[in-house]
Amino acid sequence: MCEVDDKIYILLPGPPMELEPMFEKYVFPYLKEKSGYVIVSKTLKIMGIGESQAEEMVLDLINSKNPTVAPYAKNGEVHFRITAKAKSEEEAQNLIKPVYERFKDIFGINIYAEDDETLEEAVAKLLINKNLTIAVAESCTGGLVCAKLVNYPGISKVLLEGVVTYSNDAKQRRLSVSEETLKQHGAVSYQTAIEMAEGVAKTSGADIGISTTGIAGPSGGTSKKPVGLVYLGVYIKGYKTFKELKLTGDRQKIRDRATKELLDFLRRELIVEMIGK
Amino acid sequence: MCEVDDKIYILLPGPPMELEPMFEKYVFPYLKEKSGYVIVSKTLKIMGIGESQAEEMVLDLINSKNPTVAPYAKNGEVHFRITAKAKSEEEAQNLIKPVYERFKDIFGINIYAEDDETLEEAVAKLLINKNLTIAVAESCTGGLVCAKLVNYPGISKVLLEGVVTYSNDAKQRRLSVSEETLKQHGAVSYQTAIEMAEGVAKTSGADIGISTTGIAGPSGGTSKKPVGLVYLGVYIKGYKTFKELKLTGDRQKIRDRATKELLDFLRRELIVEMIGK
Repeated sequence: MCEVDDKIYILLPGPPMELEPMFEKYVFPYLKEKSGYVIVSKTLKIMGIGESQAEEMVLDLINSKNPTVAPYAKNGEVHFRITAKAKSEEEAQNLIKPVYERFKDIFGINIYAEDDETLEEAVAKLLINKNLTIAVAESCTGGLVCAKLVNYPGISKVLLEGVVTYSNDAKQRRLSVSEETLKQHGAVSYQTAIEMAEGVAKTSGADIGISTTGIAGPSGGTSKKPVGLVYLGVYIKGYKTFKELKLTGDRQKIRDRATKELLDFLRRELIVEMIGK
Repeated sequence: MCEVDDKIYILLPGPPMELEPMFEKYVFPYLKEKSGYVIVSKTLKIMGIGESQAEEMVLDLINSKNPTVAPYAKNGEVHFRITAKAKSEEEAQNLIKPVYERFKDIFGINIYAEDDETLEEAVAKLLINKNLTIAVAESCTGGLVCAKLVNYPGISKVLLEGVVTYSNDAKQRRLSVSEETLKQHGAVSYQTAIEMAEGVAKTSGADIGISTTGIAGPSGGTSKKPVGLVYLGVYIKGYKTFKELKLTGDRQKIRDRATKELLDFLRRELIVEMIGK
């Protein structure tokens, strides 16, 4: 640590396992004492609205001085961190509250989680609360959707199985996708996505089936079906729907984004289903 | 950037996408010019040998001054970075070479990759070179093994499918694991791991089947089968083998480690198979 021209420079090691406890144990109390203030933050995580649009929707709030509102854009999502500075924790919470309520009103269903909660955790909790079982059929995401859900320890109550059907043959054999659909519309089509979702639900006996099929690149794209084209399928007890994505970026980014988009798509369908009943 | 007491402090933004190009474009050339030297590094990545044992095996090399040898321990693996400082790139490479050769002799098959190559890339290349098709059956890893393999763009040539059989029912239905095995030895047993690997290979028509079954926690452990117990199964054209792991750490760490261990286990089996033929 060094102080130069009234600025404090603090250098910490890079690995999060070393940095985070050092920050919490030493840096945070040091800064808190030095400033005489308490700083409290609340984070709202949003999907389905682009960064610039999201910022425009809350332009007056972003210019607020205390609490401050800081947007962070990540691959396909926007986080807003509301941070208040006050003499006590309670006072800081009171400053945050009205801004937090405004955000809830403005973004509604687009807020998928708060603070440390992850998207997969939000989805897993919805499934468990509704006692709905699920099965996953993946092509381009290659197991990432299933692996995300398995992050949540309680998921075994509702997750019956996952299938990564990379080849057409596996799509037919494991999921009963029809040869005609594959021939007529191709493996990357909304028709195939829906049949995959329905197929994995029915063969596993789950209430819900979800699916991805797309072209993650770098090769395999055509002018009609370019790299980044991904179809998501959702099947919930006989109800079927799909979503088309046109993503950009490298293979890893396309797969990560498709994984998130499917989980968010399912989250919205589950909330709509809950409201509907 | 500031200089205090002959030391240079450089502060960079945290996000790798910002930090890395800034470092490469500004910091590295600045430091290079300031020092008048070229710095060249070579990294060797090792699995299957613990950090302290690995360090003991190369104790004389670790004390070397130019090139320096720095060990980095990560979840289940050790990386050694050999770094030479010289007036030219060529001179630096010549300093690295004999140390690099010593490492190759000492660690042999335990070196899974060099520099930027990943474990899944090393495994995928072996499969493609040997033209061996593969299918994956996962329980506790929940799709991570398959997702890792799909990171490699060329994998569609050899990866036929993946199955995440979380429930016993799915293990029987999708993989033909026998009810007797599940009853007698349990889902977390080497017998089940082998049947899963064989089952996924046979039902998909792949040359190779690999599997994981284990207890990732935090709950589900017993005194006989504690959290962290994982069995890996490998089936290669009729040949069957397994490995038992006793892992520590949280759910995420156990699953990540099991994923790596299975890929490394397969890598070794593939190399042995190649030597044998």
